Amino acid sequence: MALDPQRTIEELKELRALTGDADGAQRVAWTDTWLRARAWFAGKHADLPVTRVQDEAGNVWVTLQGESDRALLLGGHLDSVPNGGWLDGCLGVMASLEVMRAFSEQYDGRPPVTIRIVDWADEEGARFGRSLFGSAAFAGNSSIAADRVRTDKNGISMQDALARCGVSIDQIGACTEQRANAAAYLELHIEQGPVLESMGLPLGVVTGTKGVERHALTFHGQEAHSGSTPMNARHDALAACAKLALEVRPIAMRHADAVATVGSVKTFPGIVTAVAGRCEATLDMRDLDATVLAKMFTEARAASERFAAEERCTVEWSRIWSIEPVPFHPQLLAFAEDAVQSVSGTVHHLPSGPLHDAAEVARAGIPTAMLFTQSLNGISHNKIEDTREDHLQMAVVALYRLAQKTIAWITTDERP
Amino acid sequence: MALDPQRTIEELKELRALTGDADGAQRVAWTDTWLRARAWFAGKHADLPVTRVQDEAGNVWVTLQGESDRALLLGGHLDSVPNGGWLDGCLGVMASLEVMRAFSEQYDGRPPVTIRIVDWADEEGARFGRSLFGSAAFAGNSSIAADRVRTDKNGISMQDALARCGVSIDQIGACTEQRANAAAYLELHIEQGPVLESMGLPLGVVTGTKGVERHALTFHGQEAHSGSTPMNARHDALAACAKLALEVRPIAMRHADAVATVGSVKTFPGIVTAVAGRCEATLDMRDLDATVLAKMFTEARAASERFAAEERCTVEWSRIWSIEPVPFHPQLLAFAEDAVQSVSGTVHHLPSGPLHDAAEVARAGIPTAMLFTQSLNGISHNKIEDTREDHLQMAVVALYRLAQKTIAWITTDERP
Repeated sequence: MALDPQRTIEELKELRALTGDADGAQRVAWTDTWLRARAWFAGKHADLPVTRVQDEAGNVWVTLQGESDRALLLGGHLDSVPNGGWLDGCLGVMASLEVMRAFSEQYDGRPPVTIRIVDWADEEGARFGRSLFGSAAFAGNSSIAADRVRTDKNGISMQDALARCGVSIDQIGACTEQRANAAAYLELHIEQGPVLESMGLPLGVVTGTKGVERHALTFHGQEAHSGSTPMNARHDALAACAKLALEVRPIAMRHADAVATVGSVKTFPGIVTAVAGRCEATLDMRDLDATVLAKMFTEARAASERFAAEERCTVEWSRIWSIEPVPFHPQLLAFAEDAVQSVSGTVHHLPSGPLHDAAEVARAGIPTAMLFTQSLNGISHNKIEDTREDHLQMAVVALYRLAQKTIAWITTDERP
Repeated sequence: MALDPQRTIEELKELRALTGDADGAQRVAWTDTWLRARAWFAGKHADLPVTRVQDEAGNVWVTLQGESDRALLLGGHLDSVPNGGWLDGCLGVMASLEVMRAFSEQYDGRPPVTIRIVDWADEEGARFGRSLFGSAAFAGNSSIAADRVRTDKNGISMQDALARCGVSIDQIGACTEQRANAAAYLELHIEQGPVLESMGLPLGVVTGTKGVERHALTFHGQEAHSGSTPMNARHDALAACAKLALEVRPIAMRHADAVATVGSVKTFPGIVTAVAGRCEATLDMRDLDATVLAKMFTEARAASERFAAEERCTVEWSRIWSIEPVPFHPQLLAFAEDAVQSVSGTVHHLPSGPLHDAAEVARAGIPTAMLFTQSLNGISHNKIEDTREDHLQMAVVALYRLAQKTIAWITTDERP
């Protein structure tokens, strides 16, 4: 049976019906609905000559043994955010399955290299706030100490929720043994942004995932009566923050693909009759170039201090989280270009703003590449998330061709 | 016994000890602590030849009958915000008592005109959100329909809370009969702002209370992923709002005493990884000149629409509340100037940004004037609210002299 991209679409719709409701996908990791999705997936590969294991971090590995133990990894994640879309994450898993089916048939159950599908555990971090959970553990970046004390909104501990799914929080680190023989990792994902749609392109080659600088800022001014305090006597924390929210935009726009976002602003006391004495904000900055990202951070910080001084306020910064940019593998990028060119007739490169499991795999030193397919209206993490079916079909074909080239490369690659 | 301003200070300290705690004054209207303050005040005038009544809105009137029924009203309010200061409101009541004592002695219990102290009920509106409750009812602006359904944070209805204090919500409107024979109203209050302190002045003559335009604004954009959405593809509701928060400041500063404040900003979804799809803000604008205020409102509204368009958002406005400016009486202002000049050697005029009971009295057509005394650091509604004792003494003297001139004016005034 040859590659059948339409089957992937039908299976994704089946999964949507099984695990979604009127508000969208509900496959939040470590819930019954997620376990149902995984059981459904197991049924889908039951007729292939594969083995299936769940590693210590809860990642599920479906392995088609090849002539060589050296392995091509193909991945995605079945978990979703609450009220999520029908493609985010599971497109990667189901397209990988279709590609594995095609190779299994083509090589009569024994391809030249081992092919492994990985369904990463808890990419979204929707329930406990720890995204890239399974892939980070795979890459040796497990966060056991922090995970132990996480709780969901109902007070259920992450430790207990994982135990229900067969994951012992103390053993997570042992999943790194799955890295043995990993020669390359490929992931297909929806773009989750508007770039490909705006260019009229079905597919894109992802050059890497952007580095992120994520900070909490607090401007301190002086709460004052909005009626009795003259304009020139104020220490308006919101004014300083508003200036920064606007200034981070030109700071980012001086660089081609950089983004900077003030997404949350909170005012205190936050009432109509008081000048804000305190203003809390979040800043998220991303770029694929570490030097650019560092420059943006420095400029934003200097701007915040200048604005605080102008408004006779002070400002404090606190880093929430950061990650360096992760460029993907040059040889695999070249294969991805060929595959996308052959399927769609044109190639566009773009960095990924959102993080993906692929970033953790690449950080672990495994050659990695990603393909994006267009997102309609650039919307994701929402029930209206969608992609044209012809684009989904092209995406499955492109992943197959990229995998084909990568298998050939692995067989000849001299890397240890 | 001659005027004794130091006694006013001692009595205010006594009241603070009786009705405050480590967090400040707790004389919230319609509470036991407020009733205790009122009972204490009754004891303070027990040795004067006066009558005391509580009107239908809960205002307490202490009347020293004069040769003429025409009455000079002197007022303030014993109620405070929670965790309030020791002067806001009660300075006016206690200074009025001291002035009444002096006239009672001077005229042997029978001054040329009737003198009435009024302790307005619930100036602050701290518990049920209806400020100027008693004075508005006095002015014929009772809000019975709205008051009936108000509840406090514990779900206790305003109707029940008032009944406990002897006020029947249906009878409130009848308190307007207290306006009979009212010839003038004078009020002393702390400034609650930084103007007099910045000029080194103990006292100021209040020209009137500013009009207020108070609005809720909502900017609608498009929620988007902060990592995957290019800067030029955004519909950032916060950016539009930030521009307005900054622009209202020059709009106000083009006019001498105008103020404009964005005090509350809320972002939705308000998370670090999303461009704000919606941003809610409050705007409070005030000026003593109705034409200026209208112009500011028009300019702010136009600016908000311009900024919304620039950011590819839309904006909705909803009026929370508004009140026209209330200028005080020219003849009484002239007397106030003389009084302040004689006490402090200099005169400064300023409008009041905060509303006061005096505004309601003036709207009822009764000639009205107010004096301000300096607030240290411009702070009020806080336990650190304070005023220098020598300034408090000067304020009591100034109120006395203003009352003296006003009594003379009432006796010769030809008004019906």
